[in-house]
Amino acid sequence: MEYFNCISLNDAEQLILNELAGLIVGSEQVALVQALGRIVAEDVVSKEDLPPFSRSTVDGFAVRGMDTFGASEGVPALFDIVGEVAMGQETLIQLKPGQAVTIPTGGMLPLGANAVVMMEHTERPDNSSLLVLKAVAPGENVVVKGEDISKGRLILSQGRKILPQDIGALAACGYVAVSVRQKPEVVIISTGDEVVDVACTPVGGQIRDINSYALAAMLEDDGCIVRRHGIVKDQYEELLAAVSQAVRDCNMVVVSGGSSVGVRDHTVRVLIELGKTDVLFHGVAVKPGKPTIFGMVGKVPVFGLPGHPVAAMTVCAQIVKPAIQKLLCQVISASYTIPARLSRSMASVPGRDDFIRVQLIKKSGEYWAEPVLGKSGLISTMSTADGIVHIPADKGGLYSDEMVQVELITKQ
Amino acid sequence: MEYFNCISLNDAEQLILNELAGLIVGSEQVALVQALGRIVAEDVVSKEDLPPFSRSTVDGFAVRGMDTFGASEGVPALFDIVGEVAMGQETLIQLKPGQAVTIPTGGMLPLGANAVVMMEHTERPDNSSLLVLKAVAPGENVVVKGEDISKGRLILSQGRKILPQDIGALAACGYVAVSVRQKPEVVIISTGDEVVDVACTPVGGQIRDINSYALAAMLEDDGCIVRRHGIVKDQYEELLAAVSQAVRDCNMVVVSGGSSVGVRDHTVRVLIELGKTDVLFHGVAVKPGKPTIFGMVGKVPVFGLPGHPVAAMTVCAQIVKPAIQKLLCQVISASYTIPARLSRSMASVPGRDDFIRVQLIKKSGEYWAEPVLGKSGLISTMSTADGIVHIPADKGGLYSDEMVQVELITKQ
Repeated sequence: MEYFNCISLNDAEQLILNELAGLIVGSEQVALVQALGRIVAEDVVSKEDLPPFSRSTVDGFAVRGMDTFGASEGVPALFDIVGEVAMGQETLIQLKPGQAVTIPTGGMLPLGANAVVMMEHTERPDNSSLLVLKAVAPGENVVVKGEDISKGRLILSQGRKILPQDIGALAACGYVAVSVRQKPEVVIISTGDEVVDVACTPVGGQIRDINSYALAAMLEDDGCIVRRHGIVKDQYEELLAAVSQAVRDCNMVVVSGGSSVGVRDHTVRVLIELGKTDVLFHGVAVKPGKPTIFGMVGKVPVFGLPGHPVAAMTVCAQIVKPAIQKLLCQVISASYTIPARLSRSMASVPGRDDFIRVQLIKKSGEYWAEPVLGKSGLISTMSTADGIVHIPADKGGLYSDEMVQVELITKQ
Repeated sequence: MEYFNCISLNDAEQLILNELAGLIVGSEQVALVQALGRIVAEDVVSKEDLPPFSRSTVDGFAVRGMDTFGASEGVPALFDIVGEVAMGQETLIQLKPGQAVTIPTGGMLPLGANAVVMMEHTERPDNSSLLVLKAVAPGENVVVKGEDISKGRLILSQGRKILPQDIGALAACGYVAVSVRQKPEVVIISTGDEVVDVACTPVGGQIRDINSYALAAMLEDDGCIVRRHGIVKDQYEELLAAVSQAVRDCNMVVVSGGSSVGVRDHTVRVLIELGKTDVLFHGVAVKPGKPTIFGMVGKVPVFGLPGHPVAAMTVCAQIVKPAIQKLLCQVISASYTIPARLSRSMASVPGRDDFIRVQLIKKSGEYWAEPVLGKSGLISTMSTADGIVHIPADKGGLYSDEMVQVELITKQ
């Protein structure tokens, strides 16, 4: 088999990122309740101090901390109770030396007070007197104005994926809406004379259209809106028509199948015709997923993915997903991996990046990565694997018992 | 402070699971394209063999493997080419000894053939003759009928959360729809005289309604449909009306705030009134999150969560989420954690479960868990933490440099 421009995974990723520079999708305002999972488009800073007033973190009595110094169960400090702070209401009391004010958890600290004595460290000989049995330092049991989030502080930075806790932080700062990236629109085109719709019962040598469903689910998970174009026969004109229509109103086109060198390979010809330039690469030194194609049609990236479902999903995760993140201007935080011991040696070829599906099995407190064996392209390996082990291009393989990092593909 | 029925986290979880036994939400059929993230309601088995025919995994020539035995570059084996298998079409050819048939990757193996010789290991002296330069074993370069998924094999088991790769497996087996659990409907009621809507600018001692937004996002992430009831004042009758209305048409009620012992505590009274039984627990030995309440109103579980956002989110993750999974009959696969070294000692109290928010920092190839310090309830700790470290009830704390398991709260 012959591949034009067969390049390394690293070069392929770099080339794609260069081509996509400046092609960020637009932004839009969405309501807070719709912001979960979206990508922040502009830095969000706090417009105010949080809390907006100094507040108590316990039920007790607001005092001047210094007035309690030396107090103990044997020698309590005596205070006059001069009022009560009501929950959720501003207090106008100004505390003088030797005075105390009843305050609930979350209550606003009166002027002059700088600490709160907990209820259980006090005694009340009568309604207007208080005995403090334990000293409190200034600042004790208090959150001061702006201590949590100060005015002007960055709450969420551009490119962050919004998590549930971020929704909480936005709510705290009074944001009812937030500017996020529009969802990239991706068109998936399935190709192949042998491919039939999922609803069909394959006859003869036919096979169902697995990829457009699996890839659509992956890309939706990554924050895209996916349109499935349906199945195109292995005919140049039909694929040309499908791709030229798709690039008109989407941010990315993914052609599934028809990417191996041979009579059925029309994707490259279509890209050359529409792109008015060479295909940027055809073939990546990666296993599975070698027959991967990439080109640009105007400002729209077009990927040709292998027909084998496992290869197509591997390339989608390793090559297409970073392209989506680039379009979204998404900042990728550290990708956490699970350290595990490899249960058997796996051979690779230097110069090629291998991605091996593994099951994670916990034995005596340690994870073992057990490669899911089976011929390339078996669909049954997709659902049984928990994660992926990457053998980088500079390694010839991995040894049994070697520690590896497993990238999870199951999520809870 | 006094808590009725303050119990351990473990007992609380067990008690909830017992109460929810048999309260599984119903099932519904959804189209394959809408099944991502849903919970499988019934075991899905393959109705057919996959592949439905033996197929080639390479471009080459289908042969009887035994006819190639002994073949080499020096002594090639000679074959008659008797036809060609077309992609996606049934072949009626019956292979006899010494015969070969051209076959593409994915093509259907003719009767009599049991192996495929790769194109590059052949020579063609003329149009009808083939020289095979390398022997192939029977089964080589072939996936036999049913080898991938055999008829009757379990594809997805009940209780599994459907991942993108599962969508692929379902498509492969011809499922255009799948039976999944209905989404649990949860009503969130915010309480507190001091709580104002997010759109408001808090005045005096007011604070914004953070929890109903943060908790809604968490529960939506867990597969629920959430209705936010809005803010209820600290009045018994108002809360009673809100809860009795909510339990009529939902699967769970979450009351945020108003759960500490004190004058504002109406949640317990409401539960006693509506539940016609005792509150099942009031107070869990967990930090943060002690003032947590649980009761049943008929068949609807009602949780009272602390008002502090960090405490509310911790309890939601540790106590409410397992309850949702129980309603969904969701089977929880191993929860993967990141091993990390704790950057400083953390004290705890034996008999109490502590949940500490940490940042994960990679130093010389190893993760360090750096506790996010700050007073309880600081909202700023929510978005800066990457994960949670659990100090179990039987430990008095954790030492600096100790290896801990970090449960991730950030997702990509």
